[in-house]
Amino acid sequence: MSTVAFIGLGNMGGPMAANLIKAGFTVKVFDLVPEAMQALAEQGALTATSACGAAAGADIVVTMLPAGKHVRSLYVSSDANDDTKKGLIDVVAAGTLLIDCSTIDADSARFVAEHAANKGLEFIDAPVSGGTAGAAAGTLTFICGGSDKAFELAQGVLNAMGGNIFHAGGPGAGQVAKICNNMLLSVLMVATSESLQMGVDHGLDPKVLSDIMKVSSGGNWTLEKYNPCPDVMDSVPSSNGYQGGFMVDLMVKDLGLSQEAALLSNSSTPMGALARSLYVNHAKQGNGKRDFSSIFELFAQSEQIKHKG
Amino acid sequence: MSTVAFIGLGNMGGPMAANLIKAGFTVKVFDLVPEAMQALAEQGALTATSACGAAAGADIVVTMLPAGKHVRSLYVSSDANDDTKKGLIDVVAAGTLLIDCSTIDADSARFVAEHAANKGLEFIDAPVSGGTAGAAAGTLTFICGGSDKAFELAQGVLNAMGGNIFHAGGPGAGQVAKICNNMLLSVLMVATSESLQMGVDHGLDPKVLSDIMKVSSGGNWTLEKYNPCPDVMDSVPSSNGYQGGFMVDLMVKDLGLSQEAALLSNSSTPMGALARSLYVNHAKQGNGKRDFSSIFELFAQSEQIKHKG
Amino acid sequence: MSTVAFIGLGNMGGPMAANLIKAGFTVKVFDLVPEAMQALAEQGALTATSACGAAAGADIVVTMLPAGKHVRSLYVSSDANDDTKKGLIDVVAAGTLLIDCSTIDADSARFVAEHAANKGLEFIDAPVSGGTAGAAAGTLTFICGGSDKAFELAQGVLNAMGGNIFHAGGPGAGQVAKICNNMLLSVLMVATSESLQMGVDHGLDPKVLSDIMKVSSGGNWTLEKYNPCPDVMDSVPSSNGYQGGFMVDLMVKDLGLSQEAALLSNSSTPMGALARSLYVNHAKQGNGKRDFSSIFELFAQSEQIKHKG
Amino acid sequence: MSTVAFIGLGNMGGPMAANLIKAGFTVKVFDLVPEAMQALAEQGALTATSACGAAAGADIVVTMLPAGKHVRSLYVSSDANDDTKKGLIDVVAAGTLLIDCSTIDADSARFVAEHAANKGLEFIDAPVSGGTAGAAAGTLTFICGGSDKAFELAQGVLNAMGGNIFHAGGPGAGQVAKICNNMLLSVLMVATSESLQMGVDHGLDPKVLSDIMKVSSGGNWTLEKYNPCPDVMDSVPSSNGYQGGFMVDLMVKDLGLSQEAALLSNSSTPMGALARSLYVNHAKQGNGKRDFSSIFELFAQSEQIKHKG
Repeated sequence: MSTVAFIGLGNMGGPMAANLIKAGFTVKVFDLVPEAMQALAEQGALTATSACGAAAGADIVVTMLPAGKHVRSLYVSSDANDDTKKGLIDVVAAGTLLIDCSTIDADSARFVAEHAANKGLEFIDAPVSGGTAGAAAGTLTFICGGSDKAFELAQGVLNAMGGNIFHAGGPGAGQVAKICNNMLLSVLMVATSESLQMGVDHGLDPKVLSDIMKVSSGGNWTLEKYNPCPDVMDSVPSSNGYQGGFMVDLMVKDLGLSQEAALLSNSSTPMGALARSLYVNHAKQGNGKRDFSSIFELFAQSEQIKHKG
Repeated sequence: MSTVAFIGLGNMGGPMAANLIKAGFTVKVFDLVPEAMQALAEQGALTATSACGAAAGADIVVTMLPAGKHVRSLYVSSDANDDTKKGLIDVVAAGTLLIDCSTIDADSARFVAEHAANKGLEFIDAPVSGGTAGAAAGTLTFICGGSDKAFELAQGVLNAMGGNIFHAGGPGAGQVAKICNNMLLSVLMVATSESLQMGVDHGLDPKVLSDIMKVSSGGNWTLEKYNPCPDVMDSVPSSNGYQGGFMVDLMVKDLGLSQEAALLSNSSTPMGALARSLYVNHAKQGNGKRDFSSIFELFAQSEQIKHKG
Repeated sequence: MSTVAFIGLGNMGGPMAANLIKAGFTVKVFDLVPEAMQALAEQGALTATSACGAAAGADIVVTMLPAGKHVRSLYVSSDANDDTKKGLIDVVAAGTLLIDCSTIDADSARFVAEHAANKGLEFIDAPVSGGTAGAAAGTLTFICGGSDKAFELAQGVLNAMGGNIFHAGGPGAGQVAKICNNMLLSVLMVATSESLQMGVDHGLDPKVLSDIMKVSSGGNWTLEKYNPCPDVMDSVPSSNGYQGGFMVDLMVKDLGLSQEAALLSNSSTPMGALARSLYVNHAKQGNGKRDFSSIFELFAQSEQIKHKG
Repeated sequence: MSTVAFIGLGNMGGPMAANLIKAGFTVKVFDLVPEAMQALAEQGALTATSACGAAAGADIVVTMLPAGKHVRSLYVSSDANDDTKKGLIDVVAAGTLLIDCSTIDADSARFVAEHAANKGLEFIDAPVSGGTAGAAAGTLTFICGGSDKAFELAQGVLNAMGGNIFHAGGPGAGQVAKICNNMLLSVLMVATSESLQMGVDHGLDPKVLSDIMKVSSGGNWTLEKYNPCPDVMDSVPSSNGYQGGFMVDLMVKDLGLSQEAALLSNSSTPMGALARSLYVNHAKQGNGKRDFSSIFELFAQSEQIKHKG
């Protein structure tokens, strides 16, 4: 089995690295938070004192970081003459496969991919979906951008951490496909919420209406898996006070990335732009840490809101 | 088998009545257009010289009309003292089941249902989806509003004309559920279009992106059955110059009904309202007779538009 | 001086009738609430026991009612054979001028105007703006629909109650012009709020930014008279906890009328439709009785909201 | 009189530099296009062979460039060790005042201001409005960001090129204020267009409706100066086939900057975001080079469009 360097051991990265250990990979980890490294060490990981230290000698590098600027500065040296500022692509061995699982802007992904290619290295952007539960269970979805060869090479590692693995296209395509999907998801959530509530406002039972629309032309993922109206489905955040799930703040982040992408490509996304405005407003009213299906409350009557508390 | 009066023999009503004949019902038809009646007569229908004439003596009355005002004036007499203005509910026998398959405003459906109830008659609003193709093939979907008893009684007739038959709730609920669904559908179509085009603007293959989103959290009916991007799916309007299918003008009508419903119930439908604006603008640019997935062209680059032209 | 019948003595109608008395008109009033009539009687009004009783013998009838259905049923008899259901146009003398100051749907205004014309009577729809303060001060703005002759005849009465008097066109045009204006106003308010807050989010002083935009191409009525950002202007609701002024619920009503009008004429109003959605949501969060400039809080950071709270 | 270096002699910069010459300044120009420099030389300018050559020895530097990346790389050296890559702030004399009149993102303006401050130099961001006509006539509006001292020092030069000069705040505030204003303007234009057309759809005269709203609470700059409905005002683009004026493509650029700013500050701008989507769509339908008031055609009936066509 090959050696994997794993950098970034947060809520997502930690369990992902743990699954690589379980799958038999030799895993060398690094994180700025010592406790995060310690937790992985107890599960069998080797630790390093720097990101470059972890990456040196690895066959595959996997990174999981908060934003594009972190990914850029980790992979690409800001000053080639200063050894203390070396990037990962300066220190890894020839033939090392680089996989970034962060959700970041496509431009940053393309920037790193290009620098990697200049050094003869393969780089894949492989943002995930599935949340912390999927990370722990090893059932994440990966949407990848990169060459066919790199995508092929990444299969072993990605399979150890997730279920569905998609190849969206060349460098950056993984990030683009993910934000296209999440932008669309945000609109599905808002539109399903307003449609269900309009039915309720006319006296319909939201469960009956959901059942009808689910198998009709209004059918969509939120009606299948994640109904935003309380007490229509079991085991979803809407039936649990909108706790858990995918936080409003994270949807706001992804919608920000989607609008950044739309500006770059001069694309028009009226629904996605409106969804971003509604979600930002929703976050500002104090709902940032609640599940993103709580946008349903925007449409419910105040009495209902009060009742649900 | 029972006798069915069928009133309104247009593009939808004609083939629906024909399917009732095929199923063995005695069908007595009326339409203001003699040729429409003649066509049904040739298939075995009896004809009448007025709507009331067709309805008198029938066990079941089915109507298929353009708008709420037609349904109101057909069923409910505008002047009880004037025999020439009698409504259907004044002339039908006790126990006759009334089924209106028109897509109209919920208020009109409730108005007729209430008048029918006052005469001891059962009334169902049962708007359809599935288009002229579904009407001909007998595979329409019916979304019904009315009592459990009436819904039970209607099964035989509705099964002869369609496949899925839903019971959305009491009087008017069929209309409400249908416009909730179609409003949601319109948003799915616009949002899927803008998401796909943003991917294309970043160099992604729309087919690959569609395949990814279809099985991810962006999954929805338009990706499954009705992809708006040309040449992604076979046998859909987008791969045929946006001919056939469900016309923009009809979506504009349904979105108008949805906004009328939203006003009545003081509901907020930001996505549905925006979809209506975009579709009305699209119709005004000369696209009223094209399929509603042609909204995709709003987002495509002009060169692409020219190319597809 | 002529005799004026005034029907509908609410928050607006009461002070309007009082101003007619002050101007020397003989005023005969009716309202369903006896106390409202009593208050006017103390200021010199004659009282009647029914609307028709007030109108009989008057030279001019002025009405101020909540909604279109009230105006329709007051003016137009629902049953010509039933004396107890007579409408105003059945009882007034030939040559009586009818002026409806209610803010209602244009269709109802046209309906009454047509029935009045059939009886040879002149009818004007004359919705007002200026609020209860303007009603008391006699500085209301009237936007009128009706014939040139009727508009000419109405000058005396309208001048006694207001300042600006506009002639928007034929029957119904007053209502249309008012809702076009108020729809536009709602968008100005939202767009000015979001623009100011974006400046604040970037560290700008809202007063400085307001001063710049006011005299630039972003200039509009809200920056001139009604700045939504707290503490930019004195004596406006935003500097008084959004108390007083023009209530969110009333803006929701007017935006509902605007969307009803847009449906009737197949017009596309993306901005107005979005403003309605945002205002309905705002009302549902418990802000219905606050001034409509409180929509600003939708865009402010939660800390700021808490601070102002 | 002081010496001014002017860099960037396009449609705006050329006439601005010419006005400085007329006002008696010694003007040293640079542009990558030799013909642009030659035109200014004929009006009395000195020419330079590089931007740094123009700036060396000047008391004041004025720049007018297309985008933030040009401004960044012109002012700030990308490599301090490479003389061929020196930035303006490396070569100007102590005490030189730097004024950038480009319309760019606020971040770039702040970036340059910070680097200038590190060298002890004063920098002002001073984007303009008023178009090429205002540039030629010397009636531009400047919206400035920078210190009080720098703003004071800039008066002489700015006065020679324009009329209104605003001080919006510290570094970057000029850019922020300008895009807040232009975002608001775009919404005024769309909302005024849809309101006027809804009135027209109900039979109102757009001139009468404009006159009423202009002095009512719907009053705004577009009704005062730039009515989008053909034939309401003389001498505006709408009465001239939407030729001239402020191009749709430029509004799309400014709306892109506004959304970039909204992302940076986590601001919600639903109206501005919707306006961007509508304007991008409008540009993609082939209207990029027409005046931005042509968005009116989105709402007009197709027959009207055909007629005006």
